[in-house]
Amino acid sequence: MTTPETKPGPSFLRQVPQGDDRDRLVCQDCGFVQYENPKIVVGAVVGLGDKIVLCRRAIEPRRGFWTLPAGYLELRETTAEGARREAWEEARAEIDIDQLLAVYVIRRISQVQLIYRARLICPEISAGPESEEVGLFAWDEIPWDEIAFPSVRWALNDYRAMRHESGFAPRGNPPDDAGDL
Amino acid sequence: MTTPETKPGPSFLRQVPQGDDRDRLVCQDCGFVQYENPKIVVGAVVGLGDKIVLCRRAIEPRRGFWTLPAGYLELRETTAEGARREAWEEARAEIDIDQLLAVYVIRRISQVQLIYRARLICPEISAGPESEEVGLFAWDEIPWDEIAFPSVRWALNDYRAMRHESGFAPRGNPPDDAGDL
Repeated sequence: MTTPETKPGPSFLRQVPQGDDRDRLVCQDCGFVQYENPKIVVGAVVGLGDKIVLCRRAIEPRRGFWTLPAGYLELRETTAEGARREAWEEARAEIDIDQLLAVYVIRRISQVQLIYRARLICPEISAGPESEEVGLFAWDEIPWDEIAFPSVRWALNDYRAMRHESGFAPRGNPPDDAGDL
Repeated sequence: MTTPETKPGPSFLRQVPQGDDRDRLVCQDCGFVQYENPKIVVGAVVGLGDKIVLCRRAIEPRRGFWTLPAGYLELRETTAEGARREAWEEARAEIDIDQLLAVYVIRRISQVQLIYRARLICPEISAGPESEEVGLFAWDEIPWDEIAFPSVRWALNDYRAMRHESGFAPRGNPPDDAGDL
């Protein structure tokens, strides 16, 4: 999961454009309004038997910590396509998506995460460029002390909680948990 | 649902930034990378008894056509908060969100729509600034020939299909339907 650099140039100031009701970034040179929108992260808890795919991050933030294959949805991509792409990019994992496991919102960074439940099609996986290593972990082998983000922990717990269920409403943030580190 | 103007200024050209793997908009004056991300629309099918809230659009696109209360998620807002805000802004409707009804993806415009099933708390509704009028429609009264967008039709049908269900997986696009007008 890379973090795009979205700092605007020096000509941008915050002001309320005509007909709007909140501050936007407006370029004082050309009038361009740089709308800032929440970002969509797509990913998957990928299972094979009783094991789960995790990736050790090769990039900041949280380099060296374990995460799920997940990342920013690209333009003109469905959310399922994005989750499959990220599984391939980060773990060389071919996956079969089952259903939407959870929708998490990380308010502080305006991020909406759509996390699917998926099955690993082929047991061979390997680290993509953004991973130091990848692995298949049974529940008791998960490196809980080295998990990259709170929402990774949520997704693992939700996956475990729903493992015998199908056709369920997606889970959300744990109560009163904003997902900050 | 307003459409923000996101055309970049004249100094932006499409090129692949270092370390990236696809074209981005890069300002040739200051080097600022204008990442373009899919946008999140949040909304709700709002029911009261056997009736559903619809809003006649006062703005383009599809001015004069009927839609659900829905719009772009704002920064630092949860998806449920966004759906409640839009119901208030467009129909002065106070709603109680039940569960996620559907996740639709409109690929052509890189839009991910999270549509909730909700209940109208108070039967008094009225047009907000982006609506010409609002109304409560029984199924047989819905103005099917004057629906603003395909995804509004999908959401109404999905709401109808799931009306006796709870705890279900959210619905998606109808098969092979990209949601274009």
